[in-house]
Order: sequence, then C-alpha cells, then structure tokens
Amino acid sequence: MSVRKHKLINDPLNILSEMLAGFAAAYGDIVHLTDDGLIVRRQPKAEGKVGLVIGNGTGHEPAMIGLVGDGLFDVNVAGDIFSAPGGERIVAGIKAADRGAGVLVCVSHHAGDRMNAEMALALCEAQGIENVDLVLLYDDVSSAPKGNESERRGTAGLFFVWKMLGAYAETSSSLADCKAMAEKIRDNTRTLAMALTSCASPITGEVIFELPDDEMEIGMGIHGEMGLGRQKIVSADKTIDMMLPAIVEDLPFQSGDEVLVLLNNSGSMTLMELFILYRRVAEKLDEAGISVYKSWIGPYATTQEMAGFALSLCRVDDELKALWDAPANGAYLKKLS
Amino acid sequence: MSVRKHKLINDPLNILSEMLAGFAAAYGDIVHLTDDGLIVRRQPKAEGKVGLVIGNGTGHEPAMIGLVGDGLFDVNVAGDIFSAPGGERIVAGIKAADRGAGVLVCVSHHAGDRMNAEMALALCEAQGIENVDLVLLYDDVSSAPKGNESERRGTAGLFFVWKMLGAYAETSSSLADCKAMAEKIRDNTRTLAMALTSCASPITGEVIFELPDDEMEIGMGIHGEMGLGRQKIVSADKTIDMMLPAIVEDLPFQSGDEVLVLLNNSGSMTLMELFILYRRVAEKLDEAGISVYKSWIGPYATTQEMAGFALSLCRVDDELKALWDAPANGAYLKKLS
Repeated sequence: MSVRKHKLINDPLNILSEMLAGFAAAYGDIVHLTDDGLIVRRQPKAEGKVGLVIGNGTGHEPAMIGLVGDGLFDVNVAGDIFSAPGGERIVAGIKAADRGAGVLVCVSHHAGDRMNAEMALALCEAQGIENVDLVLLYDDVSSAPKGNESERRGTAGLFFVWKMLGAYAETSSSLADCKAMAEKIRDNTRTLAMALTSCASPITGEVIFELPDDEMEIGMGIHGEMGLGRQKIVSADKTIDMMLPAIVEDLPFQSGDEVLVLLNNSGSMTLMELFILYRRVAEKLDEAGISVYKSWIGPYATTQEMAGFALSLCRVDDELKALWDAPANGAYLKKLS
Repeated sequence: MSVRKHKLINDPLNILSEMLAGFAAAYGDIVHLTDDGLIVRRQPKAEGKVGLVIGNGTGHEPAMIGLVGDGLFDVNVAGDIFSAPGGERIVAGIKAADRGAGVLVCVSHHAGDRMNAEMALALCEAQGIENVDLVLLYDDVSSAPKGNESERRGTAGLFFVWKMLGAYAETSSSLADCKAMAEKIRDNTRTLAMALTSCASPITGEVIFELPDDEMEIGMGIHGEMGLGRQKIVSADKTIDMMLPAIVEDLPFQSGDEVLVLLNNSGSMTLMELFILYRRVAEKLDEAGISVYKSWIGPYATTQEMAGFALSLCRVDDELKALWDAPANGAYLKKLS
C-alpha cells in the first residue's frame, strides 16, 4: 500500500485552526482571517456588486481558501476535513460577503454541502436577510447517468465556475444574472477523475480507501468515493483514450466547439505525468475538431496526497472567454490580464 | 515503504520529449518549444536587455520550464531526468536568449550542471560568441559548512533569484549588473530541506533512496542526496523549531531584518501541512524580531513525488522588495503587480 502514513501536523484537533492561521499569515496581502474563522478578501469588492460565498469541507487545499481574492470569491467558510461547515457559519459568511447587491452561495453538490447551504438560506429567511440565493454545482460524469445531471457530484471542474463567475460578479449587480452565469458555466462543464493511490486521513492516519499498487480506479470522487471501476494500470495515452470520450460524448462536445481544459492534480501526481497526459488530450481533441482556448494544469481541488487527476472540459463562447481572460488574484489562482 | 511504484507515462524513453510537448501545448500563450527542444518565451524581452538562461535536469517540475516567461527566464534548456543538458544544448539556449546585451547562464550548483555550463562558455568562446557569463547559485546550508558557502548545493531557495533576477533583467542592459544582482540575492538566501518519504525514478520505477515510514531526514538534497541525519518523525512545530534556527544562524538573519519566506513543496506534501508549518515559521520569526515581507508556499522545485519541503529565507532591502513585487507571468509563477 503506497500511502504515506505520517502527516506533519501538530494536534489533529487543531488542523483547521492552525491551517487557516498559517494560510492567512502567509497571504495577508490577499486575504484576512476573521475572528469567527472566515477567509475573506483583504480588499472587499466594490459596493453594489454581488457577493460570492462558498462553504466546503477542508482537505482539498488550495480549494477553497486559495480561491478567495480579487476576481474570485469574496468569502470561504471552511469546515472540518471533508465535512461541510454548519448553516450558522455559512450565514456568517453571507453577511461578510454582502456588498448591498445580494449574495450567491455556491454549493459543490454533496449531501452535506447542500443540506448546510439550504439550512443557511432558511436561517437567512428567519433573520430577515434578503436577496440570498444558492446555486448547485456539479460536473462529474461518473456519478449519475446523462439525463440525471443534477444528481451528479461537484468535483474539480467547478474550477471553471470559480474563475469565470468570480470575474462576472466583479461587475454584476444582479443576483439572478450571477446565478444564471454560474448555471451556464456548470452546464457546459464535464469532468472525469481517476486515481492511482489512496490517501490517508490527516486525523486518523488511516487510508480512506484501499487500492492495490498495480490498479487504477476511473471515476474516483473527490473524497475517495468509488467510481466506475478498477483495472490494471495502463499507459498515460491509454488512460486518456478511455477517459476523454466519456467526457466528450456526455455533453456532447462537438467538432467546432472551443473549450477550456483543466488537468487537476488530486495531490501527488508529478507535473511530468500531467504534461505527458495533457499532450494526448490536446492530440485527441485536435483530431475531434475541438479547439482548446486555454488550459491549466495543477493542483486546484485535491484529495490530500492522493495520486490521481481529474480531466475537465468547459465549452466556451466569447462571453466566457472574456471572463476567463479577466485578471484574478487569489493566493492559488492568479491570472494576469 | 510508502512510495508509489507506478507513474502514468508512456515509453520511459520519451518522457522528456512528451513532457515538453504537453507543457508547450498547454501554455502556448506563455512559451514556445523550439525544434531543438528549448523552452523559450513566447514574447521575447525588449532588444538590448540581458538574456537569462538556465539548463537543468528535469524531474523537478515546474522548475525550470514553468519559470520561463515575462519577468522571469528567457530560455530553459531541459536535460534528462536529474541530469544536466550538455554544453552544446546550452549554447543553443544562449543563442536563443540573446537580445543584444549579453546572456547570463544561471547554474544551480551541482557537479553536472556546473561542468556543462562551463563547457558551454568554452564553446561560446571558441565560436566567437561574446558577452556571456555564468553565475553559480547555491543556498543549501546542510551541504557544506558556513565559510564554505560556494561549495553548497543549489536548491529551492534559488526561487528568489529566478523571480527577482528575472524582474531585474527585464530592464537591465548590463551583464555585469545582472551577475552582481544574482549574487546579491544568492548571498542573502539560505535553505534547509527535509523529507518524510523517498520517491521513485520515473524511468526505472525504483525508489531513489530508502527511508523508513516512521523516520524523517533533515537536510535532504533536491535529488535525494543524504542530509544531516535521520530521526523519528516529530510534530510540525518541532520540525520547524529544529530547522529554522539552522537557517537563521547561518546568514545570520537578525532582529530588524526583513525577509521573504518560501516553503517549497518537494512533491506530495499537502498544502494543509505546509500552512500548519508556516504558522510556526511566522511565529518564530516574529519572536526573533525578523519581519516577513511576503511569503509563498507551493511546489516550485520538486523531487518527483517526494513528501517533504524546503524552507528558504531571503533577506531583502528596498531594491529587492521592488523586484519581488514586479509582475511575472510564467506558467507556474505568476505575480500581479
């Protein structure tokens, strides 16, 4: 079992607080850690623009603390490891993100995240906080069949929503428009992930699932949820040749489409491997007449030190391309205009 | 032995060419892969400015292909895994970087890198290519005692040279000034690394050194070279409490100094662990009266999927702070101004 057993931490009970303190100390020019444990933008966006909040379990760093900043999210409410924050904490995040034009709560579709976000909205209603809405985000083609998209899990492809909705909300005063934009990006995004190894819980030190050293799993979820199936490890090219068609045929992406591509590092893949994998992605998309507008390769939503990756495509038009190209300055997502 | 045995590649003989092809395809707006295998800036810097070249073994991605771009390096000559490129290839890199004001070849101090860079300079002289110089870069306090700094290895702390010399060369027409700037940054930088696991050669699949699951090594080199010694794994805070004084006392960094801090991820450390480690670094520097100007945490010079990190400090004055704050747009080092 090729999983590292020891994490370099202090008391496991202090992981969240010490991590947030260290992160905020390192990037104090970009974010601020509030007394109630929220990561907020150092420079709030303009008054009269829509605020963006996301609550999520930690263990996926840099998501989402690293995606707070100019041109990105306004507030992240970080929960415990792989565990969504409670509704009351999300309400605190909503209040912190409010710039007078409403707040959109983005939810990566998992049961706990959804339940707590809905609870937060109910609490807002009870407290007379108006102009708050939520948008459910999902992208993982392995987690429910075509036709049942809204039952799918949110995984690394949400990156495209984080970046482009962030740019959109920088200038939008309409909560409804922001929600529609989030849905537009979501509905043009598809993801499939795979893993070569498991990873260990930072709290217990136990591996979160078993996977033999010579096998790979296709369709791995972002918390180690089982996917479509296991098989012996094959080459980089053969891996892409299995995964890419499942993504392309699902939307479907078609000849003439323009796409953004993300190869998300789940943790301990080397960039060397990811570049070799990307080469095949580019080759096969070219053969299919699908043109790549821009690509990003790196760790954006991890599953601790799991060796694996997620391949995501997002179909873009001129509006989305402009949002992609807009500047962003989060600690872990930077885009120069 | 918690090391992943299988890398997701194709033919091991094609790692370098396929990796470069994939990297250049993904980041075609930033770099260009030449027919002779050089990674060069998509937009060359202004005529009459000093060119910056570095040759290095691969396996450390994103170093150095990801550090080519505006405000950074002009050309990277990538060798095979952990193996410096030959002198003739470096000469090709020198020619590609020449903008009419000379070229500085930066050398991370290892025997092969130095030998091949010196060979390149000899070849330049033989071919009548003038105005080329090299600068030897080193930072690792564990690799030679104080007083013998020039025998030390180049490791992750060279990051500070890459970023700030890159900014300086953007506007400098003097090769001598650029060399002096590289030396100034180098002479104010100190690094110490550690590892919790080994990693596997992507070519043979064999681990590059043995390290028991419950032990850590302090002073690990960037190719897995042995360091100061091994011991049972201790907590994050205790690890920093051992490592930081060795760095601080070496320069020495003193009360009143301002520093940049880098926590470089050797491969498969989680950001969670690195933020927890950074929290202690910030706390101890504050106690010592050393103030942190800016910090960066992430994978910049890796050793494949090794679990470990390097801690680097660089003492800065107003000149260096301005260079740090200058914009940069490499695929894997982005700085908004």
